[in-house]
Amino acid sequence: MKIALAQINPTIGAFEYNSRKMLDFIKTAKAKKAELVIFPELSLVGYPPLDLLEKESFVKDNLKYLKQFSSHIQDIAVICGFIDKNGGKSGKEFFNSLAFISNRKIIAKHHKVLLPSYDVFDETRHFEPGVKLHSALFHQHTFALSICEDIWNDKDFWKHRLYPKDPVADFFQRKKAILINISASPYSINKLGLRRKMLSAISKKYKVPSFYVNQVGSNDELIFDGGSFALDEKGKLIAQCSDFKEDLVMVDLEEKTGEKHAISTSSLEEVYKALLLGIQDYVRKCGFKKVLLGLSGGIDSALTAALATDALGKENVIGILMPSKYSSQGSIEDAKTLAKNLGIKTELIPIHSLFDSYIESLTPVFKNENSQLTQENLQARIRGNLLMALSNQWGALLLTTGNKSELGTGYCTLYGDMSGGLAVLADVPKTLVYELSRYMNLKTPVIPENSITKPPSAELRPNQTDQDTLPPYDQLDQILKAYIENLEPIAKIVKKGFSQSLVKDIVKRIDRNEYKRRQAPPALRISYKAFGIGRRLPIAQQYQESEEYQ
Amino acid sequence: MKIALAQINPTIGAFEYNSRKMLDFIKTAKAKKAELVIFPELSLVGYPPLDLLEKESFVKDNLKYLKQFSSHIQDIAVICGFIDKNGGKSGKEFFNSLAFISNRKIIAKHHKVLLPSYDVFDETRHFEPGVKLHSALFHQHTFALSICEDIWNDKDFWKHRLYPKDPVADFFQRKKAILINISASPYSINKLGLRRKMLSAISKKYKVPSFYVNQVGSNDELIFDGGSFALDEKGKLIAQCSDFKEDLVMVDLEEKTGEKHAISTSSLEEVYKALLLGIQDYVRKCGFKKVLLGLSGGIDSALTAALATDALGKENVIGILMPSKYSSQGSIEDAKTLAKNLGIKTELIPIHSLFDSYIESLTPVFKNENSQLTQENLQARIRGNLLMALSNQWGALLLTTGNKSELGTGYCTLYGDMSGGLAVLADVPKTLVYELSRYMNLKTPVIPENSITKPPSAELRPNQTDQDTLPPYDQLDQILKAYIENLEPIAKIVKKGFSQSLVKDIVKRIDRNEYKRRQAPPALRISYKAFGIGRRLPIAQQYQESEEYQ
Repeated sequence: MKIALAQINPTIGAFEYNSRKMLDFIKTAKAKKAELVIFPELSLVGYPPLDLLEKESFVKDNLKYLKQFSSHIQDIAVICGFIDKNGGKSGKEFFNSLAFISNRKIIAKHHKVLLPSYDVFDETRHFEPGVKLHSALFHQHTFALSICEDIWNDKDFWKHRLYPKDPVADFFQRKKAILINISASPYSINKLGLRRKMLSAISKKYKVPSFYVNQVGSNDELIFDGGSFALDEKGKLIAQCSDFKEDLVMVDLEEKTGEKHAISTSSLEEVYKALLLGIQDYVRKCGFKKVLLGLSGGIDSALTAALATDALGKENVIGILMPSKYSSQGSIEDAKTLAKNLGIKTELIPIHSLFDSYIESLTPVFKNENSQLTQENLQARIRGNLLMALSNQWGALLLTTGNKSELGTGYCTLYGDMSGGLAVLADVPKTLVYELSRYMNLKTPVIPENSITKPPSAELRPNQTDQDTLPPYDQLDQILKAYIENLEPIAKIVKKGFSQSLVKDIVKRIDRNEYKRRQAPPALRISYKAFGIGRRLPIAQQYQESEEYQ
Repeated sequence: MKIALAQINPTIGAFEYNSRKMLDFIKTAKAKKAELVIFPELSLVGYPPLDLLEKESFVKDNLKYLKQFSSHIQDIAVICGFIDKNGGKSGKEFFNSLAFISNRKIIAKHHKVLLPSYDVFDETRHFEPGVKLHSALFHQHTFALSICEDIWNDKDFWKHRLYPKDPVADFFQRKKAILINISASPYSINKLGLRRKMLSAISKKYKVPSFYVNQVGSNDELIFDGGSFALDEKGKLIAQCSDFKEDLVMVDLEEKTGEKHAISTSSLEEVYKALLLGIQDYVRKCGFKKVLLGLSGGIDSALTAALATDALGKENVIGILMPSKYSSQGSIEDAKTLAKNLGIKTELIPIHSLFDSYIESLTPVFKNENSQLTQENLQARIRGNLLMALSNQWGALLLTTGNKSELGTGYCTLYGDMSGGLAVLADVPKTLVYELSRYMNLKTPVIPENSITKPPSAELRPNQTDQDTLPPYDQLDQILKAYIENLEPIAKIVKKGFSQSLVKDIVKRIDRNEYKRRQAPPALRISYKAFGIGRRLPIAQQYQESEEYQ
């Protein structure tokens, strides 16, 4: 039996577009003699639909399109994801469901049993859990049907299990079957490896082959990497789709063979591809074509511009140079060199006279007070204002260039350099910004060496460097990771070899800048814990770790 | 037996402060001969703590403080809320718990059974559900212990039930007891009435008295109105706390009597008090004293200034007048009159020259393109920039003045008039802005009549009025309510008597401005469905209702 893994990139709520895409993939799969095609979780809908589900018409439309789509399925079977209604008298209104379609009919259904509600997930918000894995009998084979989280609760694989029950174990205690899992599992560094290790352990344990089909594409903050695959009953890899792009891969069930398309071979390659996809999909799915961004001559804007150019083409990226009296000639040259290397258009708008106008307007109010910090923020906000004016005028999306280390410590200006529709590097720590820049330069040296090697500076006052305010980035990034991603108490971070006063200072900075992050644009997520929907903290709070944890 | 309803305003994560506050209330209760004091849900912690729970030290600190707090409890019993650890091998790490403390010991515990995960609630994110209501025996009385949502699932009261089980019904099938419910139930218009009606039906049904103690105070977007109460076994009100402030009320269980403190008598009074509390608590809990805001002479900024002055005192509110060449003399006068009526300080910073500087800087880039809309946004952003400069300089919180009708339709400028730390009116539709203004003027006429009666205008171009772009506000607000709060499809809204093209246009405006709202400051919630954490929509999505729903 020939099975196709159909790794598609749906657009949320675009039922027409998504069904047409699935029909196209089915056509290709038929040409390759597939008898069964497997699509990802909620493939008809796009994941995550969030509160669109609450619109009276949304789920009805989804069912209407499912019916229409099913009517086209013949001489092949299809597994796809959709939203079903919960007809019961109590419980959440909907199920996150899988349909097994053959000869224009849904011959089996499954409702997701384990519903994630941690980190970026909100599935208990609208979905009622299913009771158990369902199975489908097709061409003399039994398929165990599961959706994403359903397989993530094996008692031998996890030290602590999030859910009391394991629907996979319950199923395979009763019978043997080929395990199907349709997923919308978002990317974070090294996640693909974890998925394979985990499912391989399950295939081996129950001695069954397994098919894992993941969504690809980026939706707001979440980047789905695809990387679908099939395993034999020993847990050995027999087929795989590429990561970070749509793909269709054929598997021969009896022969235990399949195509293996290339996937990323390093974390840097993964992150590079993830950010490219993130930019492309946000721009496209929001209906934009062009982007613009400020070019300071620094490394963050240089990397963002280079990524955007690779993602969208040089004709769709515009760089804006906005030097102030504190900008060094070197920085302006670096920005120009970068733009030349990338082949992108630039505009130059000096901000000296605007800055002077503000000072003139504010001086009667400030009188003789020291306003150094205010003036620094003012420059960033003048630039934000100019960039937004250009974005309005051109209908181009403004990309935000700040990195995770800045956003974590609040070393950035709300409504200034934080302005924009998409924050490309907001989950990339500064040290990784450098690594990625060098990685991109390996292929073609587009980022000026000077932007990489000079001491990082916001250039908002004379001779300023980031390290006037922050510890060296290699130290800072370790502290940020410990506090933000691993949620460690101060005392534990200090034990890694940092001074208590430094750690306390950084933690205070992180905590008190929550208000800025609440108003930050969507940030492409590449880590286990990004700022944004997966990290929900109150602003008006006063928690301080008690002495013993400091 | 004398029972005290202790309606407190905890600060999230401030364990020391919250325990001290509880001990103070206990002291007062003892003086009034109370034998039992009941505090709200998570009273030790503050609600909602959100992802603070994920910090390694947070729940440990909460348990440490609970132990310390318990050690002070003697000659009185106390019911309070805390977070317990789930010691089991699987499931979420914590329980949302209630402790019944007597003689320095916890004599009974209850873990919340029904965990809300809709609208603004995220409780399945960290909490494992309890199994059933627990009871405590104290002074010959049996108390059934429940937390908030536990009592919101009665099959006779609700047409559709959110949860398959009803722990209250399960409990009272087994035995008789006095029903205790500790809550953190956020305010929305007329919510208090619903709570009473619902619990009254339960008391009557099971023929048991009930005690409902709700948190009071505002945490970020959520305003908790308090309004705690006690009912007899016929469901009749025997005692009540005030709404929107801390309170302690005594109930005599056997006599079925108690104090009844005054509560709001109209929706307008409720909303007024809610917004006051929202401003006060955000400012205080974030560590600010002073606020500033732009005064345009229009009704939104006038109402915001009046509310802020009532909330914080005139010495803590500063109004900034920033006229442009399109500001009418009338508007400047209205703003000055308002400030004089309120007794607040003002600063005047005209933006003509700043605007000219921007046009000068941008003209070489824009060349001869029409830039009308860009110029309008520019003026709003110059004001945003000036206000933030003053906020930075003075350490004062900037209040955002936009209303729900503007934010819904995107008739506002991101990083312009949307700038600020707290959006006071962002859940108040324009028609309600007028009502509230008249309501406030009834007491003291502070808002100039002219601000109320003149046609609303952003004054960003000559002779502009809001109704050049938007339908009359009484129509718009009905459409917004139908679409945003009731989630009705276009066709259903049209049936209320609006043209299809108008409704389609408004719906399109609402949908395509989601990106602005994602970056909006926290908005005080007074309606059933506010923008912010209770409304989670993807930005990069392309759902359009299919023809039959249009």
